[in-house]
Amino acid sequence: MNNLQNETDLRAKLIQDFQRVRNFSLKIVEPLETEDFVIQPMPDASPTRWHLAHTSWFFEAFLLKEVFPNYKSIDDKYSYLFNSYYVQIGERFYRPNRGLLSRPTVKEILAYRKFVDEQVLDFLTDADEPTLQKWLVVMNIGLNHEQQHQELILTDIKNVFSNNPLFPVYNKLELKENSNLPPINWIEVEGGVREIGYNGSDFFYDNEKPVHKVYLNDFQIASRLITNGEYIEFIEDNGYSRPELWLSNGMADVESKNWKAPLYWEKIGDEWWNYTLQGFRKVEPSEPVTHVSFYEADAFSHWAGSRLATEFEWEAASSRSQLTGNFVENGNFHPSPVLNSADGIQQLYGDVWEWTRSDYAPYPGYKIPPGAIGEYNGKFMSGQIVLRGGSCATSKTHIRNTYRNFFHHNARWQFSGIRLAKDLQ
Amino acid sequence: MNNLQNETDLRAKLIQDFQRVRNFSLKIVEPLETEDFVIQPMPDASPTRWHLAHTSWFFEAFLLKEVFPNYKSIDDKYSYLFNSYYVQIGERFYRPNRGLLSRPTVKEILAYRKFVDEQVLDFLTDADEPTLQKWLVVMNIGLNHEQQHQELILTDIKNVFSNNPLFPVYNKLELKENSNLPPINWIEVEGGVREIGYNGSDFFYDNEKPVHKVYLNDFQIASRLITNGEYIEFIEDNGYSRPELWLSNGMADVESKNWKAPLYWEKIGDEWWNYTLQGFRKVEPSEPVTHVSFYEADAFSHWAGSRLATEFEWEAASSRSQLTGNFVENGNFHPSPVLNSADGIQQLYGDVWEWTRSDYAPYPGYKIPPGAIGEYNGKFMSGQIVLRGGSCATSKTHIRNTYRNFFHHNARWQFSGIRLAKDLQ
Amino acid sequence: MNNLQNETDLRAKLIQDFQRVRNFSLKIVEPLETEDFVIQPMPDASPTRWHLAHTSWFFEAFLLKEVFPNYKSIDDKYSYLFNSYYVQIGERFYRPNRGLLSRPTVKEILAYRKFVDEQVLDFLTDADEPTLQKWLVVMNIGLNHEQQHQELILTDIKNVFSNNPLFPVYNKLELKENSNLPPINWIEVEGGVREIGYNGSDFFYDNEKPVHKVYLNDFQIASRLITNGEYIEFIEDNGYSRPELWLSNGMADVESKNWKAPLYWEKIGDEWWNYTLQGFRKVEPSEPVTHVSFYEADAFSHWAGSRLATEFEWEAASSRSQLTGNFVENGNFHPSPVLNSADGIQQLYGDVWEWTRSDYAPYPGYKIPPGAIGEYNGKFMSGQIVLRGGSCATSKTHIRNTYRNFFHHNARWQFSGIRLAKDLQ
Amino acid sequence: MNNLQNETDLRAKLIQDFQRVRNFSLKIVEPLETEDFVIQPMPDASPTRWHLAHTSWFFEAFLLKEVFPNYKSIDDKYSYLFNSYYVQIGERFYRPNRGLLSRPTVKEILAYRKFVDEQVLDFLTDADEPTLQKWLVVMNIGLNHEQQHQELILTDIKNVFSNNPLFPVYNKLELKENSNLPPINWIEVEGGVREIGYNGSDFFYDNEKPVHKVYLNDFQIASRLITNGEYIEFIEDNGYSRPELWLSNGMADVESKNWKAPLYWEKIGDEWWNYTLQGFRKVEPSEPVTHVSFYEADAFSHWAGSRLATEFEWEAASSRSQLTGNFVENGNFHPSPVLNSADGIQQLYGDVWEWTRSDYAPYPGYKIPPGAIGEYNGKFMSGQIVLRGGSCATSKTHIRNTYRNFFHHNARWQFSGIRLAKDLQ
Repeated sequence: MNNLQNETDLRAKLIQDFQRVRNFSLKIVEPLETEDFVIQPMPDASPTRWHLAHTSWFFEAFLLKEVFPNYKSIDDKYSYLFNSYYVQIGERFYRPNRGLLSRPTVKEILAYRKFVDEQVLDFLTDADEPTLQKWLVVMNIGLNHEQQHQELILTDIKNVFSNNPLFPVYNKLELKENSNLPPINWIEVEGGVREIGYNGSDFFYDNEKPVHKVYLNDFQIASRLITNGEYIEFIEDNGYSRPELWLSNGMADVESKNWKAPLYWEKIGDEWWNYTLQGFRKVEPSEPVTHVSFYEADAFSHWAGSRLATEFEWEAASSRSQLTGNFVENGNFHPSPVLNSADGIQQLYGDVWEWTRSDYAPYPGYKIPPGAIGEYNGKFMSGQIVLRGGSCATSKTHIRNTYRNFFHHNARWQFSGIRLAKDLQ
Repeated sequence: MNNLQNETDLRAKLIQDFQRVRNFSLKIVEPLETEDFVIQPMPDASPTRWHLAHTSWFFEAFLLKEVFPNYKSIDDKYSYLFNSYYVQIGERFYRPNRGLLSRPTVKEILAYRKFVDEQVLDFLTDADEPTLQKWLVVMNIGLNHEQQHQELILTDIKNVFSNNPLFPVYNKLELKENSNLPPINWIEVEGGVREIGYNGSDFFYDNEKPVHKVYLNDFQIASRLITNGEYIEFIEDNGYSRPELWLSNGMADVESKNWKAPLYWEKIGDEWWNYTLQGFRKVEPSEPVTHVSFYEADAFSHWAGSRLATEFEWEAASSRSQLTGNFVENGNFHPSPVLNSADGIQQLYGDVWEWTRSDYAPYPGYKIPPGAIGEYNGKFMSGQIVLRGGSCATSKTHIRNTYRNFFHHNARWQFSGIRLAKDLQ
Repeated sequence: MNNLQNETDLRAKLIQDFQRVRNFSLKIVEPLETEDFVIQPMPDASPTRWHLAHTSWFFEAFLLKEVFPNYKSIDDKYSYLFNSYYVQIGERFYRPNRGLLSRPTVKEILAYRKFVDEQVLDFLTDADEPTLQKWLVVMNIGLNHEQQHQELILTDIKNVFSNNPLFPVYNKLELKENSNLPPINWIEVEGGVREIGYNGSDFFYDNEKPVHKVYLNDFQIASRLITNGEYIEFIEDNGYSRPELWLSNGMADVESKNWKAPLYWEKIGDEWWNYTLQGFRKVEPSEPVTHVSFYEADAFSHWAGSRLATEFEWEAASSRSQLTGNFVENGNFHPSPVLNSADGIQQLYGDVWEWTRSDYAPYPGYKIPPGAIGEYNGKFMSGQIVLRGGSCATSKTHIRNTYRNFFHHNARWQFSGIRLAKDLQ
Repeated sequence: MNNLQNETDLRAKLIQDFQRVRNFSLKIVEPLETEDFVIQPMPDASPTRWHLAHTSWFFEAFLLKEVFPNYKSIDDKYSYLFNSYYVQIGERFYRPNRGLLSRPTVKEILAYRKFVDEQVLDFLTDADEPTLQKWLVVMNIGLNHEQQHQELILTDIKNVFSNNPLFPVYNKLELKENSNLPPINWIEVEGGVREIGYNGSDFFYDNEKPVHKVYLNDFQIASRLITNGEYIEFIEDNGYSRPELWLSNGMADVESKNWKAPLYWEKIGDEWWNYTLQGFRKVEPSEPVTHVSFYEADAFSHWAGSRLATEFEWEAASSRSQLTGNFVENGNFHPSPVLNSADGIQQLYGDVWEWTRSDYAPYPGYKIPPGAIGEYNGKFMSGQIVLRGGSCATSKTHIRNTYRNFFHHNARWQFSGIRLAKDLQ
């Protein structure tokens, strides 16, 4: 599963990856005040304090307690407080109540992180090579898990700030715009029996396996993401009140939640404004639309006379594209317009997660891995929708062509957007 | 779409089908008291009064108002009261409040049915052949729609009666049992590129089209349904409290709804009893288990070391089986044990709807048909699970190999059950 | 407690009262269809079937089972089904689910009533005089209890019909109006130490006792009820959106329940219409306003520069008035305008229950009577408001000057209205 | 309304009171970490941050904006964020969402307090004597308002900490106990026409006026509060599951909220433990029971064969007692056992608020004061219960014999307890 040639390389890489990922968690919370770490704005989200502690607990529960038989945590209750959903590991603190806790304090949680880091680094430094090989998968899961929570820290804190009439600014950023945005081209993709799933030798999640065959019809995919400007046309064409465009459950959510625009948008007079991590500002028409649900993406696609791609079509269409894009490393924390025209499919990676028309389901032959760490993916394979490609809050070291993200049909607080597809006539 | 050879045949068949289906609705409500027609036991269900009126309104709205320009309904408010979810047709009475209405009375609704029947028969008798051909699809949708509501009348009234401590008996029936039930055989099915979807010339629903190719791995399918006896083993092995067997949403439903057994089951002392349309009686071990949700079916399959079939596997496996089984025409209104051993796959049709592992989604190339009648299927293609094969409350004239039924993951009031499948090693 | 002079009188009176009250229950359900008996339009209300059975069960539980040791009910489950809230009597069927039952049917319930009636009449005919004396209180509670349920049958069925777009008519009635309505006079009442509570020798409820002293300031009371016309002025003066007029909980209910007018009112164009037991018709300005909550009555009183009377003021003010009015025996089932001018306080009894400014609380020295029948009043003495005077759905044989009715602050489905009071300057 | 003899005295007293009360708010938050200020543990409670800001906003809204025409707040949005329920002042931030805000930070709120303090002190220093007299009531309301919020800060933070499995300690305190607790004596109080309400010349709340007469029967009142030990007897005698002891709404809350003991109590093995501001520890039998609702107090009184006193009885019984007790100035933040036996009524003031049997209602002749500050009391006079006497979280400078506190029947997070009363036989 790893192609490093010798022990030294492996040890060095693990130490380097560990330090890089762990430090990045601290870097993205630098702009926050202590008070910001405490808030849980909705049941789906978690306080930043909790994310920082939970990602440390993960290494404690799945690595340190295994490799150090006498391992003693800073506080026995941390396991109860910072477990998320690993029911096989033991009782958990009720998730929607995470925002009711003020202790341990941020300072104490940072001390906890430091404590865990030191133990993990001791292990990485001292273990012999076969032991490192044995725990490589757990280390990789731990680091990828932390990267997922880094993305959640950013989207959860955006949600926290959006509730505050003072509209705090997370980062300052020159607004990017492109008043000469290229039109969408329809790029043809050939169908037939295609192989789907991860086939490489680096880290992957269990849900990307087994590699298997699917039959695809020929289809077309849009050369770029849908923009705010295009989405405003949909709104102004009464898109939100035309039931023929919507899935039935989506229409029900539109009505019960009173959706009239993407999350964080507000109409002031004749103009649309939105809260961004860069503050409250006018909606920029050339940016990719984001913070839409699957239902909105699907309704938009019908309005536009097209449809969303399945996750298999997306994977087939992107199989030869380069893995570049507007990732979290750019420091934008916001999607960016297409700035230069180019051939091929643009904005495939980064910017916004792309809703597909695929329910999240196990690949043929999929088996839930044994043990608590096996709870990671399999048990969520129901009632959610697959998204592909990563966002401006995703690390470039985290995403790949076969990566399957998944959220509920009506989730809107992630950086999620729209790319269209079409059948070939 | 219809292979009748001449006008006379078509007219005669339409009249005969219409009378047969419409009369069957009256036949299945014969055992009911007036009071029974009024109750709506839960938001998902409807009162029998409403089913009888709604199926009549359907012919009024989609046929009579179109073919008779001066058509005048008995009461203008009936359209508002008895429309279900056809939002393009106009405003509807709020569904969960259907049980708050006592008028029009059952007598008035039967008069309404009679009125509609007479008009439709007038039309079928008098229209010329091209007109009959033109309205053939609407007639067929109307009749199939009524058959679906006949199944709902039975399952909804079962739910009504189950809430009543007096446990009313709908029909008397000699209990069937088989103490020498054959064990499950695993029947191998060859994979490869297979064609899926309706390819004949009779009536079909839009969701069975287009015919398209899917790639299947080789797999095995169980020779019969899971029985109550086998399901009791799962319960007694703590199946309902072992999270590793369950999808996450399923475990949440188990906890919040306090599920411990199939719907209508109750443990009295050491014995399981259940409410059936034949009254409250002991659970018969050799009968197929029914009134389980998708979540329970899925958890059971994991407990049994296997899985559910996808809807494509089900269709492929059943493609050469005969369309026979324990249907509503038998008058059992209850699933029946396998009574004779036989080769091949048994109980494929009738008895209980079989939960698949497939989310209800559009087939490649599917387009929602235009007009209000197009709301029938497409807008529900999200957040539901496909069931196959029909039940003891389904008409044999309604079901087919490509038929796709769909319900929410946690629906339990239909006659829904479990057939296992396995990957080939 | 009873001033009848000899056994014959007592026996004859009991038989006569029993037959009169029991028959009146049947009389008021005559206009109903079988389907109407089944509906429970909201958790606070009950289906007519249930009222008819419950009032019979009351005699069974508190009389027949006591006086006939071998008494056998028609069905043992009736006790479970038709007990309301007498927790000491045994388990009860969950109240908000009463509308989920279709059996026993109306016919069966009428047979149950007949069965109970025969037993009670046997008892009344055969018991010796000391036994009759002993059970007199229970008989009287049973009959008064039934009269309360007669009022509920009328208000609950009004609620049922009001939900139905067909607006069924319960009784036809010539609309009464008075375009020369006299203005409100303010009638002065002297304060000081006054005696409150029932002091006679006929039947009374425990909550009217003990007689006790209260100190009242001098005050003024309005000579008649507030009319629809006056209430419309309040509405049009933005009464429902001026928080300074409202109790805080009342304002919250206005907002969460979207109250803009009394229950059953609807504005069509520029005109107010309302559903009445006489059908859907224009609001008549000279009628007393009804179907308002305590909160609305209180807010209206503030808007009018006055206040509601306390229950003690009401009792003191009415102590010398004659017990006449528009009662259920009139057959109007609707409040009536003042038709003739007269001195003194008009409309004190009948028409509408008058909200007081008094929380329902025990009188000094009150003790809950022992036994299950003692649950009748005491345990509700919290979180409700006292109403006085009876309504157009109350029997003149049921009401008296000291009678304390009580409902929740936001209850609106009773015939409840407004009389103003004022401090003396 | 104020008996100071000259301007110097008035000015000096106002400055001294203002500094004392404002500084005390800062003193009680000293033990808190920044994170603690942010949490809102339930809709009824508020984050400490908010309390500190809201009490400052009060002076800004009702004093500074009036006396300084050019007054400019630090941030215009503070008025929206920190208004509580003064609907006449303008729009307010939705109360249950106060815990979703992290900004302004604690540091910014402390700066806001300082800013307001300086302006108020400028006003108190510079205003001429008639102006001081004119604003005396507003100043006094502001300070008493802040004292109420000081009590809420303590009870809300106790609720915050109680949710945290780490059980933070607010203050260390030697546990007080008295194993020789004197039994309850029944002290007789003479009835007749008594005067109720505030009759002095210092500050009072509008709800204590007008002084008026009530008629009381003779009664007895308990010499001390009910203890934990006595309450445990009630629990162990199945007090929580005997409906005959409970008001109907109370029993419903017991069932729906699963109450089995006072708030913060937990049974571990055979022992009762409870969370206190001094940490999680064993329940001390001689301490007054606290954190019980009105319903529990009422049920306990029935179990004990007695009842609660009305607020009028309480006021009459305490009219000659000295205003001493275990107040917030003691620094206990916890009720204390009777430590020395003494004649008369003990523990009347301080320790725990005493639930009365009186609904919170206006006194005869009460009028809501005009203007926004008039919203203070009147609009809450419905659906709540009066408590008397103050608690261990109340300032001795805040409480008096006529003081009427009020909370909902089921509120338990205040320091509320039980004193019994009895009718005279």
